[in-house]
Amino acid sequence: MREVAVIGVGMNKWGELWEKSHRTIWTEAALKAIDEAKVDRVDAMVVGCMSGGLFVGQEHLGALLAEQLGMGPIPGTRVESACASGGLAFRQAYLAVASGMHDIVLATGVEKMTDVDGGAATFALSTAADQEYEGFHGVTFPGLYAMMARVHMQRYGTTREQLAQVAVKNHAHGSLNPNAQFPMKVTAQQVMSSAMVADPMRLLDCSPVTDGAAAAVLVPLEWARKRSSGPFIRVAASAHATDTIALHDREDMAFLGSTAKAAEQAYKQAHIGPSDLSFCEAHDCFTISEVMVIEALGIAERGQGGKLTASGYTALDGKIPVNPSGGLKSKGHPVGATGVAQVFEVVEQLRGACGARQVKNARWALTQNMGGTGASTVIHLFERV
Amino acid sequence: MREVAVIGVGMNKWGELWEKSHRTIWTEAALKAIDEAKVDRVDAMVVGCMSGGLFVGQEHLGALLAEQLGMGPIPGTRVESACASGGLAFRQAYLAVASGMHDIVLATGVEKMTDVDGGAATFALSTAADQEYEGFHGVTFPGLYAMMARVHMQRYGTTREQLAQVAVKNHAHGSLNPNAQFPMKVTAQQVMSSAMVADPMRLLDCSPVTDGAAAAVLVPLEWARKRSSGPFIRVAASAHATDTIALHDREDMAFLGSTAKAAEQAYKQAHIGPSDLSFCEAHDCFTISEVMVIEALGIAERGQGGKLTASGYTALDGKIPVNPSGGLKSKGHPVGATGVAQVFEVVEQLRGACGARQVKNARWALTQNMGGTGASTVIHLFERV
Repeated sequence: MREVAVIGVGMNKWGELWEKSHRTIWTEAALKAIDEAKVDRVDAMVVGCMSGGLFVGQEHLGALLAEQLGMGPIPGTRVESACASGGLAFRQAYLAVASGMHDIVLATGVEKMTDVDGGAATFALSTAADQEYEGFHGVTFPGLYAMMARVHMQRYGTTREQLAQVAVKNHAHGSLNPNAQFPMKVTAQQVMSSAMVADPMRLLDCSPVTDGAAAAVLVPLEWARKRSSGPFIRVAASAHATDTIALHDREDMAFLGSTAKAAEQAYKQAHIGPSDLSFCEAHDCFTISEVMVIEALGIAERGQGGKLTASGYTALDGKIPVNPSGGLKSKGHPVGATGVAQVFEVVEQLRGACGARQVKNARWALTQNMGGTGASTVIHLFERV
Repeated sequence: MREVAVIGVGMNKWGELWEKSHRTIWTEAALKAIDEAKVDRVDAMVVGCMSGGLFVGQEHLGALLAEQLGMGPIPGTRVESACASGGLAFRQAYLAVASGMHDIVLATGVEKMTDVDGGAATFALSTAADQEYEGFHGVTFPGLYAMMARVHMQRYGTTREQLAQVAVKNHAHGSLNPNAQFPMKVTAQQVMSSAMVADPMRLLDCSPVTDGAAAAVLVPLEWARKRSSGPFIRVAASAHATDTIALHDREDMAFLGSTAKAAEQAYKQAHIGPSDLSFCEAHDCFTISEVMVIEALGIAERGQGGKLTASGYTALDGKIPVNPSGGLKSKGHPVGATGVAQVFEVVEQLRGACGARQVKNARWALTQNMGGTGASTVIHLFERV
């Protein structure tokens, strides 16, 4: 397979974008990436979107958005893996270029979540869980992650304060990101006294409901080398794994098996280990999620994710910064877009274009995007070359 | 890229399967294909499903169904392109094997459409059209195809009787297919006097609402050759193209541009032309659809699809049989499954295993699966080698 590089990325300011439609939000991000890549064509497009049907009453997004781009009749493919839809779209685009099927592929993600009311949005999100055995019986996503948090706290002694530190750190990072939905700093005390959602998950432990999109242009690395002198952002690994969709079927509710499996494959493909990472963008849909993700990625020892976070190890000035973008927590979480927005941050960081939130001397980066309570994970590794 | 072969297929008896759940229907078809392929593992799975969200309140199907198979943590990818979701799933599986990323890939499609009432099903299907410019204003799919039919009739002189002949032919074929939902023969008179849905489309001009699934196992052709003496079913071409999603944006409402574009690419890849086809499985969601599809595929001259059908050219004993399976019209149309079920028929036909509906001396076959009013088309060519 061919080596692949990302030569352009785009996203917009995320938030409650009531004055813009689903397709408009997507098109803004897509055109930014194409402009930045300085390409005059795209051979294929992939879009990750979790539930166009339930959020905006629109499926068939591959065709709709290829037309919106003014680039029909190119193949437009929509992929879905709940909140990992964006990461999976990037992976499909990577595969299309790596295989030689297409030369210039646009990977995108989009979700417009605020056109429906809170109850409908909660239902739409619950379709990422096992509806027949979880959702239809009333459990919501904060409820599922709350159970995971309780097990983690009970088994490993993870504290309420440690969970809060994930939010404190990510909002501090997000305060430096002009695209973030909630760029305000928060204190541990504010997190711990915010409204209860599902004990122990409080409002400031949860990522928000967001409208937004992100896009990236992928080409063969050799093709990029012919056009400019670099540095280039090389896709060093692509991995995708699954776990049981229902939480009660897991061997261990306090461990993210699909993330561990995908990480193992990705490190092997790139011949590196977690200690080589300059930083990573992780799927912090809840504060407990990031704690468990850094354990599954091998950044923290099993059970030590909370303690490591509280130590500052994963802060912007720590050993391995996690979520310099602000993460889902502060930047926002338009579910289908998140995985591609992680790539946006990685590319900007590896270019050294992140200003106040720049990770120093960044060379290796990892994106970890997961669906549901971790039933699917997509991981990519990137290297500045 | 590597050459790819299909070594196992599975589907179930389609219909209103109220006693079975979405995942059960899928699993039946998937396990049949795996059993037939005689493989003891699958490296990845792709599922085509149009709207798990609106039909059964379940997204995240890649993870759910990989687990259902008992084969997690394999990558499970869901793709969507409205009624072309199954064809697109097959294409993604093909790409995964052809590229060398995976060796044994399961391509599947599923839709459970009868758990919601007629109004909700009509809404779910309308999400394949341009909701903001078509669906929200009240037009339904029969309405959109009725407009296409009117233009075709007005411009080319296509008659009501010719349209009816598509249904007569496909129900005659379907009467020989044990998996068909409506295996009864119909007469042109019955079609033309059935209940009006959207003038000139009557009940028997429309494909039904169906629950069903289909699956196929893809491997490298060389790998298949090492296991048995053949004959083998080789995937000779894979093409995917788009058109405007809204009908009013088309250059020509009476021509399927995405099908013509994808067909052109597919014939080029396989170095054959339409006259080389032994038969094809075409997307006859309405009688007018098949008339327009055979024109876009180059089987009929432009405007002559109705006349050619009435002549018997596309019947089982004609020059190029179209839809020997009975097509969407008689076999049923669980939207996400249809594209993979077309592959099921092709493989069975090329093996000579179709009994009373067998196409004589079949060597080359084409599957054409489209979404919406033709905003997306996926075409595959197959050869018995």
